[in-house]
Amino acid sequence: MEKVYGIIMAGGGGTRFWPLSRKGTPKQLLNLSGKEVMVNEAIDRLTRVAAYEDIYIVTNCEQADKMRAVTTGRILPERILSEPCARNTAACIGYAALKIMRERGDGVLVITPSDAYIRDEEAFGRVLGVAVRTASSSNKLVTIGITPTFPATGYGYIRYRDAQGEVKPVVRFVEKPTRKKAEEYIRSGCYVWNSGMFVWKASVILKKFKRLLPDLYAQLLKIAASFGKPEESRVLEEIYPELPSVSIDYGIMERSKDILVIPGEFGWNDVGSWDMLGVLHPQDEAGNVVVGNAVNVDTQNTVIYSSGKMIAAVDVSDLIIVETPDAILVCPKSKAQDVKKIVEELKAEGREELL
Amino acid sequence: MEKVYGIIMAGGGGTRFWPLSRKGTPKQLLNLSGKEVMVNEAIDRLTRVAAYEDIYIVTNCEQADKMRAVTTGRILPERILSEPCARNTAACIGYAALKIMRERGDGVLVITPSDAYIRDEEAFGRVLGVAVRTASSSNKLVTIGITPTFPATGYGYIRYRDAQGEVKPVVRFVEKPTRKKAEEYIRSGCYVWNSGMFVWKASVILKKFKRLLPDLYAQLLKIAASFGKPEESRVLEEIYPELPSVSIDYGIMERSKDILVIPGEFGWNDVGSWDMLGVLHPQDEAGNVVVGNAVNVDTQNTVIYSSGKMIAAVDVSDLIIVETPDAILVCPKSKAQDVKKIVEELKAEGREELL
Repeated sequence: MEKVYGIIMAGGGGTRFWPLSRKGTPKQLLNLSGKEVMVNEAIDRLTRVAAYEDIYIVTNCEQADKMRAVTTGRILPERILSEPCARNTAACIGYAALKIMRERGDGVLVITPSDAYIRDEEAFGRVLGVAVRTASSSNKLVTIGITPTFPATGYGYIRYRDAQGEVKPVVRFVEKPTRKKAEEYIRSGCYVWNSGMFVWKASVILKKFKRLLPDLYAQLLKIAASFGKPEESRVLEEIYPELPSVSIDYGIMERSKDILVIPGEFGWNDVGSWDMLGVLHPQDEAGNVVVGNAVNVDTQNTVIYSSGKMIAAVDVSDLIIVETPDAILVCPKSKAQDVKKIVEELKAEGREELL
Repeated sequence: MEKVYGIIMAGGGGTRFWPLSRKGTPKQLLNLSGKEVMVNEAIDRLTRVAAYEDIYIVTNCEQADKMRAVTTGRILPERILSEPCARNTAACIGYAALKIMRERGDGVLVITPSDAYIRDEEAFGRVLGVAVRTASSSNKLVTIGITPTFPATGYGYIRYRDAQGEVKPVVRFVEKPTRKKAEEYIRSGCYVWNSGMFVWKASVILKKFKRLLPDLYAQLLKIAASFGKPEESRVLEEIYPELPSVSIDYGIMERSKDILVIPGEFGWNDVGSWDMLGVLHPQDEAGNVVVGNAVNVDTQNTVIYSSGKMIAAVDVSDLIIVETPDAILVCPKSKAQDVKKIVEELKAEGREELL
């Protein structure tokens, strides 16, 4: 069995959980479930196929210190790779793959985001196992799809050819669809959500980079030439900002044949905004999700999150109410995505202390 | 010209401005306008007809210390009368009238609540002047009515006979009406709101007490017998709780002939709950009333009051959002009256620290 490495992509800004998420404390560093910080949950899940000491985290310099602190005891400090700036997922994955290839040797890379919730971890581990074996034996690119539970318009989809077995050949990747298209996809039964989870050998993906993203690859090689040398961080800081910003989906997946997808059903949820807090916490009879100190009178379908002060909600419905040590958010659940507008507004007003 | 005394009734509990108002800090002790504490505004208005040193405040023992502190420099400490418990307006007025009669002698009493807003203080002062002259010369009970601006169902009304001059004979007092009745009253043009402001001689109202509320009067005389003696506060604490609880309206006004009313137009508003904060503060173009630290995105007709933390309201309408050092309230404007339900709920849960 080939060596397996985990790569957790944890560079996201995560403005949609403002005011709890901040520039230096994005969603993956929050403990939204009340149990464990999200990135640690992602790490622990990966240990079903990779050892703790073989798990890498790619983050950015603004979060790196906090990331090291939060993952202490799980992740070796030298496994935390810090991008000088965000250059999308292709750069992130290419950088980590080269790092592992050069310093540890070839192996199967299991790449996941840092901030999704997975209810059935056992089923997830089983799917990862299948993906690792497939990537190892076939030298192909493998991705994990999510069997859709509703016609989501916020995710990309993957069309697959219905074949025998758990592993399906990918027909094509499709962008976030309209509602109507999404409903068609679900009816067809041959589409899964693109979860952003990938499994492949380091050597295989690097060959893809060389062929499909030669400019990016050439730049990454310059960075790799400095690995382990005194100038490593200087070179990284010089070259990284110049890397082309392209997603792995657009740069490699959509332009490759012979990709395999494993449709997975393990209660995946990206917990993308406050309205999804009910994924992590029980609801009361009136549909309220209450975390922390609160009193309700005649309140329904409302998400209440208090980090300290008592929140009294009287006769409101379908709201999000969040309290943190320095700010309060009130927003309809249906506009949970618009929370980022507040962050933009605060940025425009120069209120750095609240970003 | 007879001596004029002011009596400010300031014993109210004021749960409808929770979480800003508390048991020990009811509405009259709040500075909702950002300019001055309400009771001090009431005091200053009364100085248009009475000297500071002739203004009395009737409060209760829970608020007395804070009342003394807040009114320092305006009101002599001995002018602050402290009821051992609330026994409605008849007891309150009878007690204050006897106190003044015995210790200062007869005079015209100008009695007002402590927690209403009056926009046009000059017009108000003029009406008070007319009322004082009328009460002084006629030996009648005079009340100030408010010319209604909308068919309110939350106030009592006074029907008057349309007579020459500013002072009208009262036909009858009516309880809070239905919407339909209120509309009729407004159309008739012969009704004003009962503002709870009364002007009469001490000697005149005490005769009314003796005749219409003889039991209450007899008890008050027992209290009065102790005025200025060492046992005064002990006697007050013994007898006051046994006083019948009856309103001055029910006990005296509704049962008296020859009452006069002066319809007043001076921008009176009882600022009865959070939805009325716009009376004290300007609105923005979207109808929001914002006091303190806040950022809005697409928010309309919303009342936002922050005592410190930044409140971000995204895409909400017709809400009340209030932040104080230990609690947060979110409630529709239309349910502003229901804020007291939260107070009841907290009481039931034994959360004394929030009452």
